[in-house]
Amino acid sequence: MTMEIYLAGPEVFFPNAREIGAEKKRICARYGLAGLYPLDNDIDASGLAPAQTAGRIFHANCALMDKADGIIANLTPFRGPGADPGTAFEVGYARARSKPVFCYSNHPGTYADHVRAAGLAEGPGRVDRDGLTVEDFGLAENLMLACAAWAGILTPDRALAYDDLSLFEDCVRRVAADLPKA
Amino acid sequence: MTMEIYLAGPEVFFPNAREIGAEKKRICARYGLAGLYPLDNDIDASGLAPAQTAGRIFHANCALMDKADGIIANLTPFRGPGADPGTAFEVGYARARSKPVFCYSNHPGTYADHVRAAGLAEGPGRVDRDGLTVEDFGLAENLMLACAAWAGILTPDRALAYDDLSLFEDCVRRVAADLPKA
Repeated sequence: MTMEIYLAGPEVFFPNAREIGAEKKRICARYGLAGLYPLDNDIDASGLAPAQTAGRIFHANCALMDKADGIIANLTPFRGPGADPGTAFEVGYARARSKPVFCYSNHPGTYADHVRAAGLAEGPGRVDRDGLTVEDFGLAENLMLACAAWAGILTPDRALAYDDLSLFEDCVRRVAADLPKA
Repeated sequence: MTMEIYLAGPEVFFPNAREIGAEKKRICARYGLAGLYPLDNDIDASGLAPAQTAGRIFHANCALMDKADGIIANLTPFRGPGADPGTAFEVGYARARSKPVFCYSNHPGTYADHVRAAGLAEGPGRVDRDGLTVEDFGLAENLMLACAAWAGILTPDRALAYDDLSLFEDCVRRVAADLPKA
């Protein structure tokens, strides 16, 4: 039985969203896994109001996650120092459905490093420019995401391009090595 | 039997985190509900490595959510145009555990408005300055969050202060009115 892995991440917003999805699925296939990509759901939006289309996409994505044996999530910072909130939602959803969650980020360093790199905090302090606490447990993301991940969040030594899939492939390799096949 | 509601949001990072939590719990109590606040968990971090402390907080928060009858999440944009990823994780977690999810944001407008307000995109286009798609279904957040919410995300007509609790109270009122008490 082929294991199915839901592919979560902000790639769906990239101009080459479908190509990246196809490449991720090819990588999965090389390791004997089947990737499930949100854009696999061909939602027919004709005649629908925007909120109706959104609802169909939501339910189709949840159905893909419910069907999956696990999830690989791209937590690379998106429009700020933190992960895409849609992807973060999916990590929480999958975790609560008892699916193993594998995570990677193409940015090096900790969440606190990301906040400083974004110019939102200075120096090694524990608060940002607005006086809000900067979470700093030495983790690559908010602890709710980092602690949900099977073996922590994989990160590179130096920043990788947005669409670099080498750490994604490391996650796929871990899935294939660590998870029993039914 | 008193309904218990998990109180998710970036308040835990505010300098007055405990006071806001106490005030949210008082509001819940006025409507016959019990608020469960992440900082209720008194984690003894003495002698623990940071990652161990993070792990204990993670499991304590998940246990609070598992125990709760529902969740109210503050999705006000946090360090960027989107919600706090830790809060987004919790919305996904609660949803997958079949808990009703109530959401509010203290910022007006849609997610696309937030991206423009943050200076990350110009005009009414569908892409940001990096060429990435700006999701625009007329919703206040990424559709995975917006469609998970019981009655959509409550938003104000004009921006409210970060710690304004009027929309939070509207959520509490909805919980008390809409959910059956066992």
